This record gives sequence, structure tokens and C-alpha cells, in this order.
Amino acid sequence: MPRDGSGGSSSSGTGANGGGDGAGGLRPMDAEQLRECGHRMVDFVADYYKSIETFPVLSQVQPGYLKKLLPDTAPSKPDTLEALFDDIREKIIPGVTHWQSPNYFAYYPCNSSTAGFLGEMLSAAFNIVGFSWITSPAATELEVIVLDWFAKMLKLPSQFLSTALGGGVIQGTASEAVLVVLLAARDRTLRRHGKTSFEKLVVYASDQTHSALQKACQIAGIFSENLRVLKADKNKNYAIAPQDVIAAISTDMSSGLIPFFICATVGTTSSSAVDPLTELGQIAKAHDMWLHIDAAYAGSACICPEYRHHLNGVEEADSFNMNAHKWFLTNFDCSLLWVKDRSYLIQSLSTNPEFLKNKFQASQANSVFDFKDWQIPLGRRFRSLKLWMVLRLYGVENLQSYIRKHIELAKHFEQLVISDSRFEVVTPRTFSLVCFRLLPLTSDQDNGRKLNYDLMDAANSSGNIFISHTVLSGKFVLRFAVGAPLTEEQHIFAAWKLLQDLATRVLGSS
Amino acid sequence: MPRDGSGGSSSSGTGANGGGDGAGGLRPMDAEQLRECGHRMVDFVADYYKSIETFPVLSQVQPGYLKKLLPDTAPSKPDTLEALFDDIREKIIPGVTHWQSPNYFAYYPCNSSTAGFLGEMLSAAFNIVGFSWITSPAATELEVIVLDWFAKMLKLPSQFLSTALGGGVIQGTASEAVLVVLLAARDRTLRRHGKTSFEKLVVYASDQTHSALQKACQIAGIFSENLRVLKADKNKNYAIAPQDVIAAISTDMSSGLIPFFICATVGTTSSSAVDPLTELGQIAKAHDMWLHIDAAYAGSACICPEYRHHLNGVEEADSFNMNAHKWFLTNFDCSLLWVKDRSYLIQSLSTNPEFLKNKFQASQANSVFDFKDWQIPLGRRFRSLKLWMVLRLYGVENLQSYIRKHIELAKHFEQLVISDSRFEVVTPRTFSLVCFRLLPLTSDQDNGRKLNYDLMDAANSSGNIFISHTVLSGKFVLRFAVGAPLTEEQHIFAAWKLLQDLATRVLGSS
Repeated sequence: MPRDGSGGSSSSGTGANGGGDGAGGLRPMDAEQLRECGHRMVDFVADYYKSIETFPVLSQVQPGYLKKLLPDTAPSKPDTLEALFDDIREKIIPGVTHWQSPNYFAYYPCNSSTAGFLGEMLSAAFNIVGFSWITSPAATELEVIVLDWFAKMLKLPSQFLSTALGGGVIQGTASEAVLVVLLAARDRTLRRHGKTSFEKLVVYASDQTHSALQKACQIAGIFSENLRVLKADKNKNYAIAPQDVIAAISTDMSSGLIPFFICATVGTTSSSAVDPLTELGQIAKAHDMWLHIDAAYAGSACICPEYRHHLNGVEEADSFNMNAHKWFLTNFDCSLLWVKDRSYLIQSLSTNPEFLKNKFQASQANSVFDFKDWQIPLGRRFRSLKLWMVLRLYGVENLQSYIRKHIELAKHFEQLVISDSRFEVVTPRTFSLVCFRLLPLTSDQDNGRKLNYDLMDAANSSGNIFISHTVLSGKFVLRFAVGAPLTEEQHIFAAWKLLQDLATRVLGSS
Repeated sequence: MPRDGSGGSSSSGTGANGGGDGAGGLRPMDAEQLRECGHRMVDFVADYYKSIETFPVLSQVQPGYLKKLLPDTAPSKPDTLEALFDDIREKIIPGVTHWQSPNYFAYYPCNSSTAGFLGEMLSAAFNIVGFSWITSPAATELEVIVLDWFAKMLKLPSQFLSTALGGGVIQGTASEAVLVVLLAARDRTLRRHGKTSFEKLVVYASDQTHSALQKACQIAGIFSENLRVLKADKNKNYAIAPQDVIAAISTDMSSGLIPFFICATVGTTSSSAVDPLTELGQIAKAHDMWLHIDAAYAGSACICPEYRHHLNGVEEADSFNMNAHKWFLTNFDCSLLWVKDRSYLIQSLSTNPEFLKNKFQASQANSVFDFKDWQIPLGRRFRSLKLWMVLRLYGVENLQSYIRKHIELAKHFEQLVISDSRFEVVTPRTFSLVCFRLLPLTSDQDNGRKLNYDLMDAANSSGNIFISHTVLSGKFVLRFAVGAPLTEEQHIFAAWKLLQDLATRVLGSS
């Protein structure tokens, strides 16, 4: 079929059904049809990015909107690609919240990039299931190599490299990363203390730790009363206080409980606080506990020499995690986990059924890794491709500049907030997140909660920007996280102008 | 940048770095650059599919091959897309096992298709993280709608629909599906019996059940001695015998244990056996246990009326799972899970941190689903797009023909095996998997293990086909699973001719 160069529209009406209505049956993977349809989709996607600023950043639809637009049952006959594109434009896109918009400042970023997108395409094309080395050696080997590269970029201790007893692996999310190391630590402890010690196992973290830890504990069967959520130190910008951890461990041990796991964070979700890794590492070592470091967001910044000091102490950790899909231009999902001793992961997560046995397998030779034994699921995508392509097509120096640029933009925003006396910066900025709020009027009953909620809601309802919130020491705080790939200086200024105007309005009506 | 229509090669040497070497910084998501590079990748992928039969199906590289070809550290400067394509051709593809080859017959299939590929592209382009409804309403709503469509295609009882108390959700894999329902069932039981009953919880399945169940038990903290792996009934084609389950439950209850979970399979991994759902459902109901049905592979066949009877009894189940990424043309990963009562999932898997609270959230209104509470991770991709596109672009009738064609091809292969007296079909074929082996010579010491291993190894080492194996009643059995999208009659005949020729060779040398 000839290639249609008209940029996203086609009058041929050819679908992807490959003449599937005839007796010859469906040909769902015809190379020339893939080529034609693929080119049309590339144009559709490029046009989407070109016009991304015309959409409300936060989708403005109401619950149930799509049910009214789609039929109740699947179609029995095929439709054309053109009809599908129409539906995407008219029905799907209004319900999309545009994480790639330059005006997206909510939660933390989730970066797409040309290199990452190309990597996703290639991975979807091979469509392999890389559970064992043999099912696509390149998938396992590229992952090992690229995670070693990345460990060196972060200057992780050499024990985290695959050439030592450790190694890196791509998980889907930071939630899965903390779960698998929690399981490894749980089982290591149970082997020492007997498995009926289950109800005595205790986990330590701060109240700023991501909810993924709580969820991991629920899944792993850690008793809910044995998750010690210690109040973070307001005077240390919401980092955990080591003496509080020591005190809690001491109390628990005197009650006959078994402390086994500490989760530290570099760049908490609420305010990008950095826990004191070295002290926590010493505590973990003294009590034979597992120390995990969650640097899901801020890990990316640590490839820059001037931010690397935030990882000082990682040498004491048992595991370390950062999300390349957040602020590192690698499309979601791509969460990087390194462990110092891979055998603990494998002991907790391996199974070896007959139907997967082969002459190249991890349990038979030390020459290969079977990543199925390092993760929750059996199947896994070829995710190392996109990370490799990001590193190859951009290079480390450009990636460092990319991070620095966002931090500079966040600094500008912070300065703008400081320059308007109606606002306050709630915690000092460390990376590219600014935590701020509109100061409540003296007569305010709820310490500015409604005021700031209204400001956020007005901003998000305008469609012009998307920001999110948290609560710190009872204050309702607005979060402005810079990090979308398309964000430039003018977007920061426009966002600030909008927030100033809306502040005037909400202050006026309060 | 002008579009290059020359079909995969470009002399411009433009990378995806967007002039990132200048002081202006990296522009990693420029729409026109995405367009140009995207078109080149489409051509690369189409050319790959065009030439897919020229590659060895099973990669023939040796462990460590890639480390010798790539540098030890990440590049500091960007490289061109052309250089990257060269590396993919020369270094990556030799290490790929070609799951999309028409000569791929190993394990179970993992389908790619034009529609699925386009869905992956669009999902990677939006690159949203759909943990809550608000983070992209279309992602949640399309998933709800398409899973309801699919439930109707499978004629699942109406309780499994989102409009009742149940609903469907896309998991990554069948492993995650069985894990989340095991957790839901575990916690439901612990709420009734007290959480210190942990060590008394017992799970039942056959020795043909996928290893994912064992792994889920390890993760959920079910004691290993409490996983009852009952020997499947050879006379029922390796289905579980209900009376064995009843006996085991009775023994366990008299020991004070708490039976709480049965995992049934429709289409086991070794031999596509079908467990008796109705009887297992009655047993589960009588003892207030959770019944999960794993139809990861064979579920696709059940959209055809003539195969739907294999799901009879599903009305007794609490949860049902099938993988659209196996035999349903939806690129990996896309595992569909339905539950009869979603509240159990949500009770086990929800967390509600401040930074994710919003005015449209599941815990505040019943009008939306927040799928973060139905799965292990927090983040999730927009996976419903690709399933929707497969259904729209092919239509249910074509998809039924697609399944029927593969089953016909498997029937042909089975007939070919029967026609050669040196071979035997080990279990009757039910769907598109044929279990067979070369009959051992009378003097054979190991009942044909070495003979069949050698046959498989010779076939896979030839690069012409890829098959896998299992063990049934001590017999080493070869598995020939038809289901790759490109497989046609001529591939079946060629595979059989190869196996016959190699049989002559291995029989001659044994």
C-alpha cells in the first residue's frame, strides 16, 4: 500500500483490518499495512504535541462522560482507522489530563521524549516477553549493561553493580521496587528468626514516606500496627530525625519485636525532603536491618555533581531506587532498582517450573540473570531499550543540562513567590519543587485551607495549568513541580501571573 | 524538518538530540523532530516485520555477548539516530528471540498486531499516569467500558460488570492478577478469623497450576506448607479431581487449618487442561472460600460460541482472568481481571495519602473508580487504548475467525503427528496447543527424555522454529503452541517437516 504523506489524514479509509472480512481471514500484522498505519499515527502524535497547549491541562470532563459517548458492546465488524482517529480527537482527548503539557506542574513529572517514544515503539514491535535470559538475551543483557551505566552515573558504590554481588533491574514503579526489597528483607529476617515471627516484624519510616511503603507492608503481610510512621522533623525541612528512629527501635526491641526494615527517602513526595542517609545506614547496620532508599523523583538530579551529595550515605544502603520515567525523559514505566546482594531478591521471588527450564538459566549457571526472579510478575517488557535510547540520543552532558534547567526554572518561580508578600514559601526548595501557599487573612478559621484550596481549584479549573497540594504541619500547601520536557521560562511566568490574578480574586471573595 | 520518504534510511544523520549541544539546551520533545524520527522508526519496524523470517527464531547468542559489544559507561555526548539503528541491527537484533515470527511455537504466544502497536504508540505519546480517575478520566473510563464489553463477549455473569458490584481491570500479567485476588481473599479471611490466623490459611490448586500461584503465595506470606498442590488427574487430561480437593479441605479443617482459596485453570500451561469449574465452585461456596479462574491463554478462545462451554461454572467464581496479550492481538502487557465484588480488592490495596486527594476520588463518591486501589503499583499506563483499538479495528467476528484459524492449524499439526508412528500425541488437543513426543526406543533408559530433549534442542538450534517442553506423568513432552499472528499453513508444514527430519537424525544417533 502506498505511503500517505499528507500528514495525518487519508481519504482511502483503509483500516487496520487487513481485509479481514473476506474468507481469507484477518491479517493483523501485515508489514505494509503496519507501515501505512504507523505513519499516520506518527503524524497524529506529532500533531498532538504541536497543539498540546490548546487543551486544558487538567481534563474538565465529569464522571461518566465517556459512557454516554461509546456503545454498550464491542463492535462485531471492523471500523476504519480514520473513524478511530475521529473518536480519539472527539471522545478520548477531552478526557486526557495532559502530563506532557508545558503547563503541567502537579505531583511529580512523568517525562516523555522523542528518544523514549522511539524506544516504546521498538519495544512494542519486538513484543517479546523477557522473563528468562533465553526468551530474548538482548533484553536481559541490555538491562544489565544500562543499569550498570546508570549506577556509575550516580556514583553508586561498586557493590551495586552486576559485576559484584548486586545489580540493577527495571521495575514498573517505585511501589514495586519497595515491595520486592521489603519481601527480600522480610524473608531474610524470617529465615533467621523462624517464620512464625511474622507478627513481630517492624518497619520504620517517616510520615513523609510515600504511601507505596504502607501498601507494600499490606501486601507483604506486615501487621499494620508494626509500621512505625515517625513524625518528620519540621526543623530539618521534613526529614526524619535519626534519634527518633533509634528510640522507636529501642522501644520495640524491649517489647520483643523485630525491627528489620528502614525506608529512607531522597526527595519526598510532599516537599522533596532528604532523609539523613548516613545516620540511618549506621542504625540499620547496628541492628542488622535492611535500608532502602527511595529517590524516585530526586535521583535524576544526582547525576549532576553539584547534587550528588544528597546520596552520601548510599554506601550503607541495601537497595536504591529512582524512576527514570519521572524526570529522566524515559517514558513510563521505567523504575530503576539496585540491590547490594541480589541473592536475597532471588530467594524471595524465584520459582522454577518445568515449562520454563532451559539450558541457559540462572539456577543452572551463574552466567545469566533471569529477571523473573527479581520482580513480582513473570512476564516483562523490553524496557531497557528506551532507557538506552535516551542515554545514547541525548548523552549524559545534555541530560545534566536538562535537569539543571528545570531547577533554574523552579528557582525563578520561588523568587517570584517570595517577591509577592501575599504568599509564603513553606519549605526551602531543594530540587525543582516549590512548596508555597497564599497567606491566610488574620480572620481565617482554618489556617488558609479553604483559601488555598480555592486558589488551586480555580487554577486547575481554568485549564491553563495543573498544580497539586499536600499538607505540612497542618498547613494546606500548594506544590509547583517543574519538570515537564516542554516547560520553558514563559510557562513559569504565565503560571505565576495566573496564580497572582486568581489570588486577588479568592482573597477578594474570602 | 521535512519528512523523509525513503523508507528507513536517511543520509541526514539527524539524531533526536534536538541541537542539545548548544547553549539553548536540550529540546527532547520537539513535535517536528518527533515526526521525523517517528517516521524513520515506523519504517524500521515495518522492515523488521517484512524480514522477520530471515532471523533465527530463538536467538543463538551466548551469555555475555552484548557486554563485549557495548562500552562500559554511558556516552557523555549524543549520538545520531542512524548510529542507533546500526547498533540495533548489528548488536540488539541478534540477541532477540522473535516472538512475532510465524515460526514461533514455544510457551504460549504473545501477540503483536497493527492495532495493538498503534495503541502502544498512542499510549506512549500521552504518557499519562492513570492512578486516579482525575489523572486522566479517559484512561479509567475507557478501561471500565472495554472491560465490560469484553465480559459480555465472554458471557461472564452480570455480577462481573462495573454496573454491578464487580468490574474489570487491566493488570500487567496473570501473576499480578492472581496475587491481587489472593490478597483480597487473604484479608477477607483474616478479618473473619483474626489476623494471627495467618499461619493457618490454606490454598488449593493442582500441580498443573501456573507457578504464578506459588509466587503469589510467597509474596502474600502464605506459609509454604499451606499451599496444597494436588496431583492432577491423568485420566481427565490433567484436570484437577474435585474429590481430591474435598478430601484435602476436610483433612485440613480437622487439623484446625483455614481453607480460603482455590485456583482453577482453563487451559493449563503444560497441556491446556481445563479444571471442572462448576464442581470447584460448589466446593468453594460450601466452605466460604474464594475461587479464582486463570484462563490466561484459553480465555481468548471462549469468545467463540463453540468454546464458551469451557467457562461453564464461572458464575460460581469470585474472580476471572485472561491475557489479551497472549492470543488476542493486544501487545504485551494487557492481562484482564474481573472480580465479582470489587470492595474486597479495594480494602486490601487502597491507600489514601494527602498528596493524592482530590474532589473526584473513589473514597468520596461512588461515581469514579481509582484503579490504583485495584492493583499492586500506584502508577499505571493507558493500556485500555490498545485493547479498544484491537476491538474497533478488527471487530469481534474477525477476532473469532482469527482464533478458529489457529485452532484449525493446530488440528492439522496434530493429524501430522498422528500420521507418523514414530511419534505420539500425549494428551488430546483442546485449543491450539499440541503436546507430543518422539516415542522412545525399547532400550531407552529414561523414557525418551534425552531423545526428545535432543530433538527439541536440534530444532531450536536450527533457528527455523522455536518450541518448548513440559513434563507430564514423568514423560518429557514437546509443546507446539500455534498462535503467532503471522503463522499460516505453510509454517505448520515446514515445522513438521523439520521435526520429522531431525527425528530421523536423533533416532539414528541414539
